[in-house]
Amino acid sequence: MTYSVAVSGASGYAGGEILRLLANHPDVEIRTVTAHSNAGQPLVQHQPHLRSLSHLTLQDTTPEILAGHDVVFLALPHGQSGQYTDALGDVPLVIDAGADHRLTDPAAWEAFYGGHFNDPWAYGVPELLIGGGRKQRDNLVGARRIAAPGCNASTVSLSLAPGIAAGVIEPEDIVTVLAVGPSGAGKSLKTNLLASEILGSANPYAVGGTHRHIPEIQQALKNAGAPTVTLSFTPVLVPMSRGILATSTAKIAPGVTDAQIRDAWQRAYGNETFVQLLPEGQFPRTADVVGANTALIGLVIDRAAGRVVIVTAVDNLAKGTAGAAIQSMNIALRLNESTGLTVNGVAP
Amino acid sequence: MTYSVAVSGASGYAGGEILRLLANHPDVEIRTVTAHSNAGQPLVQHQPHLRSLSHLTLQDTTPEILAGHDVVFLALPHGQSGQYTDALGDVPLVIDAGADHRLTDPAAWEAFYGGHFNDPWAYGVPELLIGGGRKQRDNLVGARRIAAPGCNASTVSLSLAPGIAAGVIEPEDIVTVLAVGPSGAGKSLKTNLLASEILGSANPYAVGGTHRHIPEIQQALKNAGAPTVTLSFTPVLVPMSRGILATSTAKIAPGVTDAQIRDAWQRAYGNETFVQLLPEGQFPRTADVVGANTALIGLVIDRAAGRVVIVTAVDNLAKGTAGAAIQSMNIALRLNESTGLTVNGVAP
Amino acid sequence: MTYSVAVSGASGYAGGEILRLLANHPDVEIRTVTAHSNAGQPLVQHQPHLRSLSHLTLQDTTPEILAGHDVVFLALPHGQSGQYTDALGDVPLVIDAGADHRLTDPAAWEAFYGGHFNDPWAYGVPELLIGGGRKQRDNLVGARRIAAPGCNASTVSLSLAPGIAAGVIEPEDIVTVLAVGPSGAGKSLKTNLLASEILGSANPYAVGGTHRHIPEIQQALKNAGAPTVTLSFTPVLVPMSRGILATSTAKIAPGVTDAQIRDAWQRAYGNETFVQLLPEGQFPRTADVVGANTALIGLVIDRAAGRVVIVTAVDNLAKGTAGAAIQSMNIALRLNESTGLTVNGVAP
Amino acid sequence: MTYSVAVSGASGYAGGEILRLLANHPDVEIRTVTAHSNAGQPLVQHQPHLRSLSHLTLQDTTPEILAGHDVVFLALPHGQSGQYTDALGDVPLVIDAGADHRLTDPAAWEAFYGGHFNDPWAYGVPELLIGGGRKQRDNLVGARRIAAPGCNASTVSLSLAPGIAAGVIEPEDIVTVLAVGPSGAGKSLKTNLLASEILGSANPYAVGGTHRHIPEIQQALKNAGAPTVTLSFTPVLVPMSRGILATSTAKIAPGVTDAQIRDAWQRAYGNETFVQLLPEGQFPRTADVVGANTALIGLVIDRAAGRVVIVTAVDNLAKGTAGAAIQSMNIALRLNESTGLTVNGVAP
Repeated sequence: MTYSVAVSGASGYAGGEILRLLANHPDVEIRTVTAHSNAGQPLVQHQPHLRSLSHLTLQDTTPEILAGHDVVFLALPHGQSGQYTDALGDVPLVIDAGADHRLTDPAAWEAFYGGHFNDPWAYGVPELLIGGGRKQRDNLVGARRIAAPGCNASTVSLSLAPGIAAGVIEPEDIVTVLAVGPSGAGKSLKTNLLASEILGSANPYAVGGTHRHIPEIQQALKNAGAPTVTLSFTPVLVPMSRGILATSTAKIAPGVTDAQIRDAWQRAYGNETFVQLLPEGQFPRTADVVGANTALIGLVIDRAAGRVVIVTAVDNLAKGTAGAAIQSMNIALRLNESTGLTVNGVAP
Repeated sequence: MTYSVAVSGASGYAGGEILRLLANHPDVEIRTVTAHSNAGQPLVQHQPHLRSLSHLTLQDTTPEILAGHDVVFLALPHGQSGQYTDALGDVPLVIDAGADHRLTDPAAWEAFYGGHFNDPWAYGVPELLIGGGRKQRDNLVGARRIAAPGCNASTVSLSLAPGIAAGVIEPEDIVTVLAVGPSGAGKSLKTNLLASEILGSANPYAVGGTHRHIPEIQQALKNAGAPTVTLSFTPVLVPMSRGILATSTAKIAPGVTDAQIRDAWQRAYGNETFVQLLPEGQFPRTADVVGANTALIGLVIDRAAGRVVIVTAVDNLAKGTAGAAIQSMNIALRLNESTGLTVNGVAP
Repeated sequence: MTYSVAVSGASGYAGGEILRLLANHPDVEIRTVTAHSNAGQPLVQHQPHLRSLSHLTLQDTTPEILAGHDVVFLALPHGQSGQYTDALGDVPLVIDAGADHRLTDPAAWEAFYGGHFNDPWAYGVPELLIGGGRKQRDNLVGARRIAAPGCNASTVSLSLAPGIAAGVIEPEDIVTVLAVGPSGAGKSLKTNLLASEILGSANPYAVGGTHRHIPEIQQALKNAGAPTVTLSFTPVLVPMSRGILATSTAKIAPGVTDAQIRDAWQRAYGNETFVQLLPEGQFPRTADVVGANTALIGLVIDRAAGRVVIVTAVDNLAKGTAGAAIQSMNIALRLNESTGLTVNGVAP
Repeated sequence: MTYSVAVSGASGYAGGEILRLLANHPDVEIRTVTAHSNAGQPLVQHQPHLRSLSHLTLQDTTPEILAGHDVVFLALPHGQSGQYTDALGDVPLVIDAGADHRLTDPAAWEAFYGGHFNDPWAYGVPELLIGGGRKQRDNLVGARRIAAPGCNASTVSLSLAPGIAAGVIEPEDIVTVLAVGPSGAGKSLKTNLLASEILGSANPYAVGGTHRHIPEIQQALKNAGAPTVTLSFTPVLVPMSRGILATSTAKIAPGVTDAQIRDAWQRAYGNETFVQLLPEGQFPRTADVVGANTALIGLVIDRAAGRVVIVTAVDNLAKGTAGAAIQSMNIALRLNESTGLTVNGVAP
């Protein structure tokens, strides 16, 4: 069967990537695209790279227009999806690319976002360990409401969960620094996102424990088995349109061997298609995952520093957002999990 | 008086930046430029941006040609400067931009570089705290042999030394991740330095405790007062020609207040021209120091993570190498320390 | 049926893109990958983005190893494919991504390349007008030997051929300036291709009529109907890994109307999938075609200057090289022309 | 003597570059900086690279605040400087970096800008030939009102004026294509100037004869001796923060020799500091002029195409705007013309 799909926020970067991937998906029909402020304009005016969708016109983002589809993707600013929840009650599958339904702890929501707390939905990171040898995939099969992950959050959570679950790293003094491309910030008209500000420069932001993906990572790692999670988290904007390179370090747990450490990741991801542990001595580059649904992980044990270093490359728009959403959709609809997705990046 | 100067390695990036700064220095005359493999060619063929030096021709790099100047800069690959030491015995001031004379510990040299160990020279980071309330500047006044620092090493050492010296951070579990531009790797013909490999990508290298600047940082921080230094150090190549953005975190020492922490850096650098602590809540971008001799430091205390986060921006070729060399030269020659140097970056 | 395929030059950029596209092609099996100097190494060591091909090992590039496949792609330096021609006599389809079989005029070959002249093969630009209302596609159906085009050459030829064929522009004073990414120059270890040289800079090369794609363009435009072609051609390297943005201008032929001019391109490409004329007032960006097999054309008539301006965006590795090769393969094998290819770019 | 200076538009890119250069100028005191919407904020909040000016606070841009200085720089959006003219009547030297006082022809102003036409001021491109063997420098000595040039316009005018003045090229079918960095468009919050839109892409704009610098070029070339000027002009945004690489071609005039052509540029610029003709076979890169006041020109004669190709590199903010302004100020004030300016770029 072919599923009818609506995508809101279709003029933005996340919406655009959802559409790019859906356009290559054999089991869906993109019937409706919406974008509040640009309603009435051709989609291709805002997404000139989506040539195969040049027949589509942006409509207004209203519950009425989104209702009546088999699948609805919400790619809206944080805090906006809640208003559609009731109206979309009859839609079999709703996937929110925003943050509204990711957190299970109202206090964390209040501390980092504020405003109305929405009930949590199934978290769209299938490969994430969630304790008891299970993965988040199990929660997605047949799910009707899915929260696609934060791009930085899922990258870091996938980096660390195997070591946490296996008890080979300590969750209490994690340090993560990320090189990220500006598309993760969306198509926002802010001075610090202008090309002249980004080109030729590395710019830190949300330094010192204020980034909104921190509670999301803590939640995921607790689900993986950590009693508490302490995390120093620093993102750095660098001049590439897409990509996250997350360097995460955690203390080696007492008494574990190098083989035990490496084995934790190998067991977690050895059978996964989209999350891959690279051979020893190899580390990923973000170019290798551009446009792909792949998270590539390089791992090294630095005994002198007493830390495991995990470097993970993800395309923030693909595996970080839209790819995760579509992979989760596939699972929810019991399609082949990799339909419409690729493991190969566009490089150089 | 005007000092006659020779610069070896003049066709490379470090040599080029030394020349760019010297060309703007009122007290020197650039008399000789050398570059082994390109001898006989006009300098400007290899440094087409140095228009004011278009009269200079590259000569062979030999002790004879370098001798007889007031100041000689060695910008040669590691391990090559030792051979010139004896022959340049009569040169009043020799400044080595390579690593050969930076380390005081032969074992560290052997572990990270190997080959012949050279005696250490005065380390060219004037603002670095070296215990007893003194700074490295004191060792540079009147010095005849100076080792310019490693660009990453001096960036990280300047980031952390104030907290170490004041005892407000712990030196035993430092984590540093750096976004660095490829010019730090020199004009080497390596596949991973090709533009197609770097553009649009973040590429980690020397992950897991293997980078050669690690012992240099440990040495500097021990000089600042740390009994031992444990450091996880990960550099990431990003698509900007110049720049280092070093994000360093260290554990907060027990019992210290936020004011005590911030005060350590304020006292260390409050009177410095070229190392500046930004006001609370501000963090530097590498664009802000392009071409400048400035190290800009942003600092935040993340009590939830139990760590101080120090983000420092440096131009690897300027303050990281050539600027440090010329600032040290000024001090050695008892000139005004900032002659020929600027605090203002070229941005955007 | 599934066609067995061998790709030589598999460690380079053109070879890598051929493989990336073939990996997504349902009718081929990539059986053999070769690369002379890297034989014995895993393909993925040189193409770390091609995760789905991580089972392949590079073999030596010899006639014996390449023989025995249904399709052989040659992605070798210019002048090297000729030696394989005889040995591959039994291979049903050979596609050369190099220049050896593109030119029909031995004098042009001698003037721009030199060395042994090889017989011309079917030119792999299906949409190119070749006179008499025909397109080059006709020559590719059932072809056994195909020369994939030069990336700049096909971009410019597709830009201008409709106007030449319709007689609405003059072929005698064409001026083209191209912004091109460095991947078009291959994975060559040359100083001018280093990231530090390309980042933050626009660098012209082959200025003044020396670029090797000039005779290829002249040949294509003569085939489209021009008695003679005069072309000023200047490529400029800019800091993007992929992409060609070709700005071509030609004089308006006497007496033609604006509608007649626009109509020439509309008629030529109105029914094409991969070459698209944008609506009036719109111009393409190279980002819109990254990874896609699309050539996007914007056209404006500047009566004050007396010239038509045609701006065309192409991904040099995709539609410019590997996409053209695979599209041509599809035609030669009488498969659906767009199998394995996409019109949608990866943007932003 | 020390001249007191005020700079309006000090929070923008042009204003920032004027300040960066003035901060290095020994004969001026930057007394006042203004920026309408950011009045009351520290300058360094908007120009964090200008460390030496961290004592300055932005004031409102009013005639009263700007009056009373020896020199006033206006770096305001087009159409805004006219309102200050009367109020600044007593200011000895006013330099406008905007377009308001560049054009002498009200019809050209009306066609490309519209709104109130202001009287033309002395055009701030000292090296520009203006007929009779004279240069624009002559008009700047002692000038009280100066219009700094458009960055693209001065680049193209300097490229072509020598050939026009000498009669060795034809002014009637010039074609210019420019690779330009986004800083030329200012710190404007427009979607097409976002980093995600610019990174990895080449984007044409103002295609087809609509760019506002066209009449400025025509005016300059007419002043150099052309009866009429026909120009096809296409700018292309590329991912570098600064820089213009203008590729200009013009038809070779009948009967002239190669030596005569080259000699025209050699005579025009052989004695100039800031406009330099490169040796035969050499072409400039924009990296070579970053931060410098230099225009570097490469020239080749393409007899096959019947055209001279002139490739010129300029830093749009430096020689293209702020450098031109300060060089003109030096001339007007009868200071050494190169005070505070450098010929050396910041590369790589």
